[in-house]
Amino acid sequence: MKQTDLFVKTLRDSPKDEKSLNAELLLRAGFVDKLASGVYTYLPLGLRVIKKIKNIIREEMNVLGSQEILMPALTPKENWEKTKRFDVAESYKIKDEDFVLGWTHEEIVTPLMIKHILSYKDLPCSVYQIQNKFRNEPRAKSGLLRGKEFIMKDMYSFHQTTEDLNDYYEKVKQAYFKVYERCGLKETYLTIASGGEFTKEYSHEFQAITEAGEDNIYICNNCGLGINKEVKDSKCQNCGNTSFVQKKSIEVGNIFKLFDRYSLPIGLKDEKGNSVLMGCYGIGISRLMGTIVESSNDNHGIIWPKNIAPFQIHLLEIGGNDESVKLKAEEIYQILQNKNFEVLYDNRDEKTAGEKLNDSDLLGIPIRLVISKKTLAKNSVEFKKRESSEVCLIKITDLIKYVEQFSE
Amino acid sequence: MKQTDLFVKTLRDSPKDEKSLNAELLLRAGFVDKLASGVYTYLPLGLRVIKKIKNIIREEMNVLGSQEILMPALTPKENWEKTKRFDVAESYKIKDEDFVLGWTHEEIVTPLMIKHILSYKDLPCSVYQIQNKFRNEPRAKSGLLRGKEFIMKDMYSFHQTTEDLNDYYEKVKQAYFKVYERCGLKETYLTIASGGEFTKEYSHEFQAITEAGEDNIYICNNCGLGINKEVKDSKCQNCGNTSFVQKKSIEVGNIFKLFDRYSLPIGLKDEKGNSVLMGCYGIGISRLMGTIVESSNDNHGIIWPKNIAPFQIHLLEIGGNDESVKLKAEEIYQILQNKNFEVLYDNRDEKTAGEKLNDSDLLGIPIRLVISKKTLAKNSVEFKKRESSEVCLIKITDLIKYVEQFSE
Repeated sequence: MKQTDLFVKTLRDSPKDEKSLNAELLLRAGFVDKLASGVYTYLPLGLRVIKKIKNIIREEMNVLGSQEILMPALTPKENWEKTKRFDVAESYKIKDEDFVLGWTHEEIVTPLMIKHILSYKDLPCSVYQIQNKFRNEPRAKSGLLRGKEFIMKDMYSFHQTTEDLNDYYEKVKQAYFKVYERCGLKETYLTIASGGEFTKEYSHEFQAITEAGEDNIYICNNCGLGINKEVKDSKCQNCGNTSFVQKKSIEVGNIFKLFDRYSLPIGLKDEKGNSVLMGCYGIGISRLMGTIVESSNDNHGIIWPKNIAPFQIHLLEIGGNDESVKLKAEEIYQILQNKNFEVLYDNRDEKTAGEKLNDSDLLGIPIRLVISKKTLAKNSVEFKKRESSEVCLIKITDLIKYVEQFSE
Repeated sequence: MKQTDLFVKTLRDSPKDEKSLNAELLLRAGFVDKLASGVYTYLPLGLRVIKKIKNIIREEMNVLGSQEILMPALTPKENWEKTKRFDVAESYKIKDEDFVLGWTHEEIVTPLMIKHILSYKDLPCSVYQIQNKFRNEPRAKSGLLRGKEFIMKDMYSFHQTTEDLNDYYEKVKQAYFKVYERCGLKETYLTIASGGEFTKEYSHEFQAITEAGEDNIYICNNCGLGINKEVKDSKCQNCGNTSFVQKKSIEVGNIFKLFDRYSLPIGLKDEKGNSVLMGCYGIGISRLMGTIVESSNDNHGIIWPKNIAPFQIHLLEIGGNDESVKLKAEEIYQILQNKNFEVLYDNRDEKTAGEKLNDSDLLGIPIRLVISKKTLAKNSVEFKKRESSEVCLIKITDLIKYVEQFSE
């Protein structure tokens, strides 16, 4: 994409009313726009990141045999009355109508499955969706970490026996770790947490370690299992060890064994009358994007992990409108695109070299290529990884080979 | 996909409370589930169709140079007060909060562009989104044609001059016709309509001709331009002709020249203080899916146009559990998948031949392949196009060539 075709402007200054680092960087870089507290628009570059995260999640959920569906956000009151969650504080209700805006979907997916799980032979099964959720969140001050409207993947599984639920639950844990690894989060722990509104049992959270984290977790020095503050016990529930190290983290996923918490009141059972056992598994996708920004940045801007970067390569033409530089930059842009690289090409005439370099650091695309009069005189481009300060000159003839190597 | 892995069941009987043909067929075939009047869940096969329509629309909007973004559904009251649309009857409001659920997005996109259109040099530009919209729709009795929550593509363009707006508007018209053609709608007319809440000017609608249509349009016998009932004049606004033919149709798109209807009250202007001129362009994606079903079906079920069918091939193994039939069916399934065909494979043991054939007609996948003891004895499979009643035997060795020919 040519940067002259991108309608979005980067901001020189930090937005005044944003205290969280993720929102500040994403707003300045033009990845999102803030419509209201906890309510954001995804601009073209931000939406590209969201789509990449969605695709990674889809791939891993499909491997688990889960089937994608899409439920509505507008959900009838009667569904919530059965499970006694109509008056939960986080739910937005529609004025003068009997609708709740979906903040989770057990109340929708459970009645749906009554129509399709006719026998224990239809078990196990699993469905997921990627959809905007709505939560009345008074503390929406953490940018994408805590939204009134946010993008979520929620998956629900259905089982005949506790063993089968347990088996699936373990597989989901592994799939979640793969998602975080593929999204470039370097250190994520499984922690034991309270079940909240969802279940009386403990739930598990996935906590990404980051300095700016809003949560404190305690990691067992022996086995690496984490424990959340609210359920901190005297010893590790996994290995019995009593020594922990405290870390700051952000929750990036939450999984629950629901058992019959929803199937019983809603009446999801097999032909013998046994309640179907359920699990539910969430990843906040916009929250995950915010967490990645919180944990991968420097003084100059965002540093996107390569699997979810909006583009792989940022090509900067710095020529002060020199025609030969422009022509060569255009040629390289075409060659890279023909090789299926995703390239953002800064072809803007009105920007100085300094402005272009600053914008590039702010946007955080993994590879920066600079072509200028100076580099062109050596038939070269300047190559720099966003995460490193090392700059090297690459012969234009070697460029494709070089870039391919890095992208593997 | 193997049909044993699909959790969805087809329904033998028509749902009692659905009068519209599109909802009846889509519900029976298990493409959607009804949560409430005008509120549907998209099940795996239905979501596959939605995704294909979305991708066709994305491709055509991208050709127009429009950039994809994603705005929130939760939109603050103050945005709607500026344009005097806060109290419009179709808007859902959130109880005890100052939010309106987005039923259109002029009030969101116009303030957004104030931050990015800093000069006439930033014009023209265009953005679009694909998002769930919410409208308080008392007459939600037409299945996917009229939803309280529905999937929509809405695009907004921004211009310095009326000429430029007019030019872009004409390009969008052509892009819309391409979308409908690619989606398999055979007869779509451009009609002149009232501007409704959006503009005092006339707008244009795209009307797909179908017997079961809810609208009556009048097509000029001379030039083919359509006119909607509510603005029917004595003669054609395009060629002056006075003779029309009446047709039944469903609206599948609506485009508006907004001029400064929103930019003026919201304050979107260039550096000289001139209001930016706007156009807006909508396609109801779920509505489009419903329209296609209304216009492409027979007594047995849906007939999906091939570009948007959930799968290209429906492979039925009818063997009464014969091991050799099962093995050969599995082999063909793998071969077709390796050739990148999208195949739904009916491998269900508990269903009779009749049930499988009925389900296949109901689901409406363009190519049906049947393998049975009888066909296997001739090293063949039975080939049938969904839209035709002709059945022919194809040698298994010729199958790929044959199927490729049809799919081109």
